[in-house]
Amino acid sequence: MFWSKAFIPTLKEAPQDAEAASHKLLLRAGMIRMLTSGVYIYLPLGLMVLNRIETIIREEMDASGAQELLLSCIQPLELWKKTGRDQQLAETMIRFQDRRGRNLCLGPTHEEVITELVKNHVSSYRQLPVVLYQIQTKFRDEIRPRFGIIRACEFVMKDAYSFDRDQKGLEKNYEVMFTAYKKIFTRCGIKFLITEADSGIMGGSVSHEFMVPAQSGEDIVLFCKKCDFVKTLTEDKEQKCPRCNTPLEKKQTIEVGHIFQLGTKYSKALGACFLDEKGEQQTIIMGCYGIGVSRLISAIIEQNHDEDGIIWPEDISPFDVLILPVQSSNEEVVGLAKKYYSELEKKGFRVLLDDREGTAGVKFKDADLIGIPLRVTIGEKNLQKGEVEIGLRREKKIITVDKNSVVSKIAGLIKKGS
Amino acid sequence: MFWSKAFIPTLKEAPQDAEAASHKLLLRAGMIRMLTSGVYIYLPLGLMVLNRIETIIREEMDASGAQELLLSCIQPLELWKKTGRDQQLAETMIRFQDRRGRNLCLGPTHEEVITELVKNHVSSYRQLPVVLYQIQTKFRDEIRPRFGIIRACEFVMKDAYSFDRDQKGLEKNYEVMFTAYKKIFTRCGIKFLITEADSGIMGGSVSHEFMVPAQSGEDIVLFCKKCDFVKTLTEDKEQKCPRCNTPLEKKQTIEVGHIFQLGTKYSKALGACFLDEKGEQQTIIMGCYGIGVSRLISAIIEQNHDEDGIIWPEDISPFDVLILPVQSSNEEVVGLAKKYYSELEKKGFRVLLDDREGTAGVKFKDADLIGIPLRVTIGEKNLQKGEVEIGLRREKKIITVDKNSVVSKIAGLIKKGS
Repeated sequence: MFWSKAFIPTLKEAPQDAEAASHKLLLRAGMIRMLTSGVYIYLPLGLMVLNRIETIIREEMDASGAQELLLSCIQPLELWKKTGRDQQLAETMIRFQDRRGRNLCLGPTHEEVITELVKNHVSSYRQLPVVLYQIQTKFRDEIRPRFGIIRACEFVMKDAYSFDRDQKGLEKNYEVMFTAYKKIFTRCGIKFLITEADSGIMGGSVSHEFMVPAQSGEDIVLFCKKCDFVKTLTEDKEQKCPRCNTPLEKKQTIEVGHIFQLGTKYSKALGACFLDEKGEQQTIIMGCYGIGVSRLISAIIEQNHDEDGIIWPEDISPFDVLILPVQSSNEEVVGLAKKYYSELEKKGFRVLLDDREGTAGVKFKDADLIGIPLRVTIGEKNLQKGEVEIGLRREKKIITVDKNSVVSKIAGLIKKGS
Repeated sequence: MFWSKAFIPTLKEAPQDAEAASHKLLLRAGMIRMLTSGVYIYLPLGLMVLNRIETIIREEMDASGAQELLLSCIQPLELWKKTGRDQQLAETMIRFQDRRGRNLCLGPTHEEVITELVKNHVSSYRQLPVVLYQIQTKFRDEIRPRFGIIRACEFVMKDAYSFDRDQKGLEKNYEVMFTAYKKIFTRCGIKFLITEADSGIMGGSVSHEFMVPAQSGEDIVLFCKKCDFVKTLTEDKEQKCPRCNTPLEKKQTIEVGHIFQLGTKYSKALGACFLDEKGEQQTIIMGCYGIGVSRLISAIIEQNHDEDGIIWPEDISPFDVLILPVQSSNEEVVGLAKKYYSELEKKGFRVLLDDREGTAGVKFKDADLIGIPLRVTIGEKNLQKGEVEIGLRREKKIITVDKNSVVSKIAGLIKKGS
């Protein structure tokens, strides 16, 4: 992509009401824009990042045997009355009546809908287990939207649901998801903690949260300095490590994943049953598995940035390489930039060419801001020696290479699979 | 994918209230399910089809120079008041107040939002033209949802918007989109008419509709039997061909695309301006370009089915090949089926293996119903002669091939690019 034709509205300053580092950087790097409090637009760069995260999630979900479908945003309120969660979710759920008088809501989550679907199509133990997932927009009437896309009213989630004959089957699927989640978050380039958590309004017993330590986290986890014990804070009183008996310390985190062994809470309320091998009716055992997809973008930035801007992990970055011709009026400089561009694109790399007129200072600042892992800097001075610079965003390292070996050098630097 | 593990709930009969052929087949083939009137769930097979259509649209949009972003579903009502369309859309627009008292709506379309976005980031002629698009869920409070996903309350649209300095620029972008649309619908395997249309509540002057002739169409076009003149019906009175002066005939169609030269309707109302080369303030000239993405699935089926089921065009089909072992208890039959499966998957084809227990009759019926272009039928009898059958769904043709040349034969039958 040529920057001069791209819609990447970078900003020198972040709006004053942006508190979190990730929020400021997402705005400044031209990745997102706020339409109204808690509601965000994903600009082209931001959408590229969102798509890369979604691709990682899809690959790991599909590999785990889950099947993707797409439920609806609009849901009939009556389903929520059957589980009593219309009361539990209270004002968090966006409700409306259509002109035919139907009571509808916008899905804050989809347990009721998926259980109703499976109930209508699964009747025998032979059809179990089944694991279904979707990547879908969710809606919550947040009283206090915060930190940009960390706590928003409209956001993207991956939610998966497992349906099993018995507790053993559930535990097996839970383990498979647990492993898939670790792979997903590792591929996203973040450090995370896994905590035993409270099931809250989802119901069920066993539950784990995947928490990303970050300055702008809203969730507090308790951890032990002496061992690897960690748990989510539920009561705000001093607590001791059950292993070491030392007081637990607090850490702010962002919740990016939450998995639950639901049991029969939803299947019982909605009547999702099956006939077992003996012809006896049994209730389906469920699990549910969520990932905050859009929020992951923020979590990644919270852990991957410096004072100059974002530092995208290779597998998440909107582009693999940024080409920066320093003198936009020098024909040799620009010609070489375009040559590298087409050669790298031909090799299948995602390349952004900063062909804008403007000072080198602005281009370097924007390059650091948007955080592409590799930068090829083509300047008159180096070119007189037949050299070009390759900059590594994360390491803040500059490698000087022969102008004829730039493409092969870049190809070597970009790890396989990214 | 192995059918025994897939969530493909086929039905022998369609629910009685399904009128359109496409609606009946989408339900029977386990592609979609109704959650509540006008609101649909895309099951795994249906989502695969939706994704293939979206991929075609993205490829052609990106090739045309448009950039993808993602606007929000939730929109502030105040933007709509500025253009007066909150009144025009009246009850069709789903509105709600959040708990902080904000008046919000669910986007039935996005002209207001995108104009507001571009207004805040484009200030000079140097930044124009820009063309942005999204593939996004839209919401309309339809009083009479009909024909399944042809007229639904929640549906997927591709909407693109062009921003230009002058009418000449708009006309150029309009032409580019016009060409891209013809490519998209041709790749989707449908026959379509292009009609000069009325701009309606979108405003502007020039407008064209892309209409798919179908029994379950809701839009009437008038066409001349003698020449290629065609227009959308606006007034219900007898009309004559402006070229041949013969009475025009009526045809039912489904609208799958609509493009508009909007002019300054939205940019004027929302104040989207730029400074021209002389430093004078000018109003941005806009165009907008919509495709009914989910509705396209129905349009494709309306034109591609027979009494037995769907006949997917190659580029749209959820799978390239269906492998059908007739005797699921014969080891040689099943072994060969699995061998073909892995060899074809390795070649990059999408393969569905019907490994279900059950009668051959059910499998053949389901195969015709879900409409995969190629079927490999492995039966004991043929196998004794060392032969396997390849069935072509569209041509209703059976080719008998040597069991060792099945994979190469299939590879030859599947056109490049599908």
